[in-house]
Amino acid sequence: MVKKLIIQKFGGSSVANVKRVQNVARRVVRYKKKGFNLVVVVSALGDTTDELIELANQININPSEREMDMLLSTGEQISVALLAMAIHKLGVEAISFTGAQVGIITDAAHTRARIIKINTDKIQEALNKGKVVIVAGFQGVNLNQDITTLGRGGSDLTAVALAKELKADECEIYTDVKGIYTTDPRVEPLAKKIKAITYDEMLEMASLGAQVMQARSIEVAKKFNVPIHVRSSFKQDSGTMIIKEVKKMEEVVVSAITLNKGEAKITVCNVPDRPGIAAKIFNELADNEVSVDMIVQNVSHLRQTDISFTVSKNDAQKAIKTINRAKVAVGVKDVLEDSDIARISIVGVGMKSHPGVAGKMFEVLARNKINIEMISTSDISISCIVQKKFAEMAVRALHSKFGLSK
Amino acid sequence: MVKKLIIQKFGGSSVANVKRVQNVARRVVRYKKKGFNLVVVVSALGDTTDELIELANQININPSEREMDMLLSTGEQISVALLAMAIHKLGVEAISFTGAQVGIITDAAHTRARIIKINTDKIQEALNKGKVVIVAGFQGVNLNQDITTLGRGGSDLTAVALAKELKADECEIYTDVKGIYTTDPRVEPLAKKIKAITYDEMLEMASLGAQVMQARSIEVAKKFNVPIHVRSSFKQDSGTMIIKEVKKMEEVVVSAITLNKGEAKITVCNVPDRPGIAAKIFNELADNEVSVDMIVQNVSHLRQTDISFTVSKNDAQKAIKTINRAKVAVGVKDVLEDSDIARISIVGVGMKSHPGVAGKMFEVLARNKINIEMISTSDISISCIVQKKFAEMAVRALHSKFGLSK
Repeated sequence: MVKKLIIQKFGGSSVANVKRVQNVARRVVRYKKKGFNLVVVVSALGDTTDELIELANQININPSEREMDMLLSTGEQISVALLAMAIHKLGVEAISFTGAQVGIITDAAHTRARIIKINTDKIQEALNKGKVVIVAGFQGVNLNQDITTLGRGGSDLTAVALAKELKADECEIYTDVKGIYTTDPRVEPLAKKIKAITYDEMLEMASLGAQVMQARSIEVAKKFNVPIHVRSSFKQDSGTMIIKEVKKMEEVVVSAITLNKGEAKITVCNVPDRPGIAAKIFNELADNEVSVDMIVQNVSHLRQTDISFTVSKNDAQKAIKTINRAKVAVGVKDVLEDSDIARISIVGVGMKSHPGVAGKMFEVLARNKINIEMISTSDISISCIVQKKFAEMAVRALHSKFGLSK
Repeated sequence: MVKKLIIQKFGGSSVANVKRVQNVARRVVRYKKKGFNLVVVVSALGDTTDELIELANQININPSEREMDMLLSTGEQISVALLAMAIHKLGVEAISFTGAQVGIITDAAHTRARIIKINTDKIQEALNKGKVVIVAGFQGVNLNQDITTLGRGGSDLTAVALAKELKADECEIYTDVKGIYTTDPRVEPLAKKIKAITYDEMLEMASLGAQVMQARSIEVAKKFNVPIHVRSSFKQDSGTMIIKEVKKMEEVVVSAITLNKGEAKITVCNVPDRPGIAAKIFNELADNEVSVDMIVQNVSHLRQTDISFTVSKNDAQKAIKTINRAKVAVGVKDVLEDSDIARISIVGVGMKSHPGVAGKMFEVLARNKINIEMISTSDISISCIVQKKFAEMAVRALHSKFGLSK
């Protein structure tokens, strides 16, 4: 009988200290003894990555990306060695590999590399010998043998890519929450753990600010149909499955409510209503590496219009400076900023086939006397910008109205 | 004109913190601007290696050596990345490499691997582009792509091996002392920095406990005649050259006095004076991985004899237990231990051609009423075990008598 293969990925908080590394080792050994083949992907211990970044910045505020990858990749290398030792201590064979050793080949885009291919020979050989295979997450190697990293949350990508390449039966993402919730339980205590959610919904939630899993890794999981199980490394209960299609989906219109307070709204006033002006503004922003999220332009009166958009709060000042520099050329008068906003979104594949969801959302907000400042929609989500002080109230009202509190 | 190539090796204390890394970067850049080609070998920051060992021991007191190498090699990887960033900050091109990337191929003896060969292509290519090349010390990779380490002080070996392979004009070993001294200046304030010393003398001093440079690296330097310059990373003055032959050597009989308080003396009493008994005792010790240093056996009376030997204090208890276990088989009665001893040695290639050096040493000790408990000699050194309380007095008296205080 062929043994089932499980990929288990443990994030930084799951291996934040010696006790937690030992805890992970015990879980791995339990699964091994149940008869599974195991490939374990580990992130750097706790805040190691942030500490290394801080160290680098003390030396060079603008460090070479190649050297940054050389530096940061040590974090995961430490984790895999320690986890191997902890598993050995429990009497089970295990072997650790760096991304380079496993042969996670990436392009040369340091600090945000993309995986080109994975050579699974070394892993397969170790699995055949009955060993638990431990792989450093977040890292790879380019064709020039330089160490690369896959960007924030890259260990998720390592796990999903390995699951695909090794044709794993499941990919478990262990984290410090119990799974995906209908909304943040700190905002709405009635929030429920979701048993199963689709890749598309999870992707939407990630882009709306949910930080449970790296967005790119969900894209890859979707593309290759890798079933993902997001669950807690501190509990035994199962968490949330992320899969292609969730049964009985018809009845569920809205799966989750997200809240993002990390953005600022910028309004460019009295923009001349001529073709090419908006393009000019947003090209300038792109050239200055300001990443714009929602964009709303109102119907024009008197050949002038207002354009509002949201950016990450960190980028707000840069965005304003950029537009102020381009003001005369573009023919703009005033630029306003509002940081006291929040973005509330409802997410659900069900809304594709259920008309009237948007109207219902606006009605709930109106009934609570919450003014909507901007609206943006996608196939499976609707987002509203509201004043920050109303954010929690809005989440709770929507959570209840769309039947998630039951 | 071909540029001169210098290998510079900086130990852990030279890169113990951000300020010191920046200090090293300034020195490297100064040499680069003088027109030298530079390959810089770096150890782990300060106490990083000890901290990682401590972390491993918290998890597994007997960790796998392969995983230990995986863990420890991160220390140097951090150093090289940070040093590259610090050199970039000063506007000079630099590139860092791990041992594996450079192609420092070793055997598979984890934690004490031997270098088999070094592929210098990557280094040469980077040097040709005008870059400072930074190489992680202490580490290599075996033919199976596993990371290996070269043992304590292994960065010295990396530097010397690279100097040999790249045919460097000089190999500079930067450390926290100004060079090699005639004796420890903390014991004898009149101790002088030695301008030049031979490989053989340095090897002898290393085996007698001087910790300035790893013994294996000096052996390699001797074998391939690599000139070494031991000097301070905090001063500009030149330090001590370690070379094949020192001119005017004829006049100098004793080059240095060493002191080692790290050993214990063990005496096995009433050993039957039969062939094979000593072999039995020392084989037992070797089987239990007790490394024995000096051995003295007295002339036998009444078919019984005493055998004394010294071991590292750390191994003393293990040695006694081992002999006690073998007691009956060997026919031994008592085993005595004395930890309050010190080993005083005089070192100098000059003593080969100068008779009477030993007598002079014993005379100095006798005149100071210091009893000699054991004596051992090599080609270029004479060692005496004395009671620890007399150690410093003995060093000072010998330092003066052999003309080193002038």
